Amino acid sequence: MAELRQLQSSLLGVFERFGFREVRTPTIEYAEVVERGAENAYRFFDDRGELLALRTDMTIPIARLVATRFSDLEPPYRLSYLANAYRAVTPQRAELREFGQAGIELIGAEGAEGTAEVVEVLGQTLDAVGLKQARIGLGEAGLWGSMLADFGGDETLLEETTGLLARHDIVGIESALVTADLGPDKTESLLGMIQLRGGPEVITTARGLGGERFGRCLDRLESTYSAISARGGADRVQVDLGLMRELGYYSGSTLEVYDPSLGEIIGGGGRYDGLMRRFGADHAAAGFTLYIERIHKAQIEGGLSGA
Amino acid sequence: MAELRQLQSSLLGVFERFGFREVRTPTIEYAEVVERGAENAYRFFDDRGELLALRTDMTIPIARLVATRFSDLEPPYRLSYLANAYRAVTPQRAELREFGQAGIELIGAEGAEGTAEVVEVLGQTLDAVGLKQARIGLGEAGLWGSMLADFGGDETLLEETTGLLARHDIVGIESALVTADLGPDKTESLLGMIQLRGGPEVITTARGLGGERFGRCLDRLESTYSAISARGGADRVQVDLGLMRELGYYSGSTLEVYDPSLGEIIGGGGRYDGLMRRFGADHAAAGFTLYIERIHKAQIEGGLSGA
Repeated sequence: MAELRQLQSSLLGVFERFGFREVRTPTIEYAEVVERGAENAYRFFDDRGELLALRTDMTIPIARLVATRFSDLEPPYRLSYLANAYRAVTPQRAELREFGQAGIELIGAEGAEGTAEVVEVLGQTLDAVGLKQARIGLGEAGLWGSMLADFGGDETLLEETTGLLARHDIVGIESALVTADLGPDKTESLLGMIQLRGGPEVITTARGLGGERFGRCLDRLESTYSAISARGGADRVQVDLGLMRELGYYSGSTLEVYDPSLGEIIGGGGRYDGLMRRFGADHAAAGFTLYIERIHKAQIEGGLSGA
Repeated sequence: MAELRQLQSSLLGVFERFGFREVRTPTIEYAEVVERGAENAYRFFDDRGELLALRTDMTIPIARLVATRFSDLEPPYRLSYLANAYRAVTPQRAELREFGQAGIELIGAEGAEGTAEVVEVLGQTLDAVGLKQARIGLGEAGLWGSMLADFGGDETLLEETTGLLARHDIVGIESALVTADLGPDKTESLLGMIQLRGGPEVITTARGLGGERFGRCLDRLESTYSAISARGGADRVQVDLGLMRELGYYSGSTLEVYDPSLGEIIGGGGRYDGLMRRFGADHAAAGFTLYIERIHKAQIEGGLSGA
């Protein structure tokens, strides 16, 4: 706990330094709110028969908070949080039912510039907690869908393969593409695209693979990368064309954070420009969240391997 | 949140200074565990059909933790916590469904000395958070029951009146005593006893009111007060013979914390020597918990009235 308290205070210190002020929301939300963003929430009834749920993340409650309480304030809003979230998972699969999250939400700042600010804070946060080796994967949510659309894939195929891509199930995707009978060239291009990762040169490589809609998605990814680079935040960034976040609300850039000492991601984020609309407010938004227990584990692993 | 973070850090600082190390337990427990100590928990099922519950306090989870994990360590254990707890209450009645608690558990230290250490830390904690006017009510759980027993009251009457006493419903108690027909003198003595509060002289006053069992309870209260006094912690202490904590697990001294700026208690605690046995370990134990949001409110009120 002493180590965790130290870690928490480092995280909040960085958020504060960049002007992100901490907010708090209740652990218990109306189920209807939580379910606008996520599945697998723990649900139960209150004394009046209202269906409640434990929050599954902080992005949804903060979207609700901003939509209902911030209408008098001028955006952008720079908010941060440090809180536990809960998911109804099966503990045997090494997933936690309860986990700490620390992160920021930048609400009302659009496009590449907003994303670049979020990535800069993320990089500084990783510095502050001593994870020198951690990498930030940068993807673009529309890449897969646009390339599929360019190649004549339909909604059903998109839906089926999006979940597979989020779980990095390349074999499953290949099998779905073969069944959909897009032809060997297109199948090969699609499978090749999602395995491209590295420096900004992979964007150039990808240009040869897809069609027009896919090209526009790559343009967005390229301008995001440039904005990050201009802020000096590209060192840790690895462009990852196959990056697909599991939560359905991501709309543009997507982020995942890795550390070489751990086999699981230690954080994630991205843009969710459409999310606030689900709560009746129209703001572009981006943010990241770090998983506290995994950051702590990575700190310990890093300390041991460095000793 | 900045104020709350500052408050949290002051609280943990005092606990640490007195050798109480912070522990953490899951928000979600098996319902069967939570219900060994409290009612009105939020309950729900997990994916395997197990009945789960949100913790209603930290004392129960820490009792479980110590009973199942600490058998290799020598008591006493000095543990602290800073965590949210949850109760299925009706928010209209100004009760919070979710509230922060900070407190300590001193497990394996018996009797007056153990209680006095807890009261000392409590007093220092109130100093550290700037609540100079806060008072600690000191009661003894058995006073009411022993006096009733001395006067020939039965179990049914005890059960009925204990709840009323916890809610300070003197009119309700009077009515129950009249119905039970103990006679006007005994009724008057019982009602007089529970309204005695002040310095240690109220213990002397009470000696004339009850019988032998009641006298032994007063002896325990007196020796607790002496131990507190010997440690220099009696300044804030107000002896309160009518103090009855709502939770059923208190066995000896009981504590409540008040601040003149607020109409509700800001903390509570006491001894619960029998609680650990419900989890299969036999340790004397005492502790206190402070309600974070109320402490924060008292700080604000105090600041305003002092300005």
